Amino acid sequence: MNNSFSPRTGSPQAGSQQVGSQQVGRLYGVGVGPGDPELMTVKAIRTIAACPVVAYFCKRGTKGHARRIASDAITAEHEELPMVYPVTVELPPDHPDYGRQIEAFFDESAERIAVHLAAGRSVAALNEGDPFFYGSFMHLFLRLASRFPTEVIPGVTSMVSSASLLPRPLMLRDDVLSVIPGTLDEESLVRTLRHTDAAVVMKLGQNLPKVRRAIAAAGLADRAWYVERASMAEQRVLPFAEAPDTAPYFSQIVIPGEGKRG
Amino acid sequence: MNNSFSPRTGSPQAGSQQVGSQQVGRLYGVGVGPGDPELMTVKAIRTIAACPVVAYFCKRGTKGHARRIASDAITAEHEELPMVYPVTVELPPDHPDYGRQIEAFFDESAERIAVHLAAGRSVAALNEGDPFFYGSFMHLFLRLASRFPTEVIPGVTSMVSSASLLPRPLMLRDDVLSVIPGTLDEESLVRTLRHTDAAVVMKLGQNLPKVRRAIAAAGLADRAWYVERASMAEQRVLPFAEAPDTAPYFSQIVIPGEGKRG
Repeated sequence: MNNSFSPRTGSPQAGSQQVGSQQVGRLYGVGVGPGDPELMTVKAIRTIAACPVVAYFCKRGTKGHARRIASDAITAEHEELPMVYPVTVELPPDHPDYGRQIEAFFDESAERIAVHLAAGRSVAALNEGDPFFYGSFMHLFLRLASRFPTEVIPGVTSMVSSASLLPRPLMLRDDVLSVIPGTLDEESLVRTLRHTDAAVVMKLGQNLPKVRRAIAAAGLADRAWYVERASMAEQRVLPFAEAPDTAPYFSQIVIPGEGKRG
Repeated sequence: MNNSFSPRTGSPQAGSQQVGSQQVGRLYGVGVGPGDPELMTVKAIRTIAACPVVAYFCKRGTKGHARRIASDAITAEHEELPMVYPVTVELPPDHPDYGRQIEAFFDESAERIAVHLAAGRSVAALNEGDPFFYGSFMHLFLRLASRFPTEVIPGVTSMVSSASLLPRPLMLRDDVLSVIPGTLDEESLVRTLRHTDAAVVMKLGQNLPKVRRAIAAAGLADRAWYVERASMAEQRVLPFAEAPDTAPYFSQIVIPGEGKRG
């Protein structure tokens, strides 16, 4: 194996490892998939089992989506480390205090994990879908990967889970796929949608009316689908025209490609 | 559950099901992930176990990548249906006979599967990565999904598996990701690369020198990585400048985003 990131490769192992003169734990960003616990990988389940500490983000009063997906893999032997978002309702995301509070929360969450790692206890940080695909794990990764051996366990994304419910492949032949956050302004959305063959629009929420206008302006309304909570018991697949006005967190617009040839 | 594709949802089940007046089997497109057998999902393993027939594409004289990844899930009880590509060396892909021969091969493969389905035997058709993400399963899906109950089991893509080895998340915040086949002409490659935040270029092979020029022209050389055989024992991660001139099938260029804000 020839790899520039020796701390980032290799198989999950229980307990700690020697780094320099000190026994430190390993940080795992574990992709737990889109929602159906059966869409967890064998490696994700084994990694959780091998780590004494399981960390996850959640909202106040809940255990969080990732924790719920992984619940069968977590035992009474695990030390659980819930990281409870401080401000998800009280302040709007564009309020100046929101950014400061949320960054301070990520700093503090990373330090709580660092205490375990420094003491030689490996930590499985759960992440819905895949950790590097818009994953919340990035907040921990950017703060800890330079200090502790860190490994990302890839997962099934909500994107391919949503696409799996449609009557056409997401991409085939020479299709280009664009994955687009619904947070972009309307003009950027239209431009990006016009220059692609297949598209997935994520982060819908309150952005859905804007995304709807952009898809219509790009001439893609007839090819688009709305998919909500793919792989979960309450999953819904609707033609784009029947999409609701506001969308839950677990939803996306999927526009399969037409199989362009080079 | 409210879903427009009743035949395409629900849990895998052994054996056959009633459709109209006839007992027919179900066709499963099973994503087996990027290469490490541990990156198969629990659902993929259970679906294979529940199907009496396992089908997979392969080259003459080999069992194929997907069959190798899934080998621990396949038992002596399974009937194996290898679908051996007829022309992968003899004719170049742009030869007029190549397209005809390969389409006839997919027609024939689909009919071999249809015989089992019509007789009430469910078939697990294996697919590296995810079946709808440039997957070879599309050739079967496009021919059979209108005739038999068909379900796609999503898998971990080689894209997120490759990205998991890098020192930065693939996308964060408001990054747009473009997934680009290296088969595009150089001008299209440059244009697509210039209008995205993060990118993954797949289908490299003989296209690598062209892709290399396009990435340099788009000014992305410093941010790009070459990843080969991610998650397999022989995986390699190289800075873009050190990429080889020809790339094996299991390789891609990954350009992580920089975390643009809307």
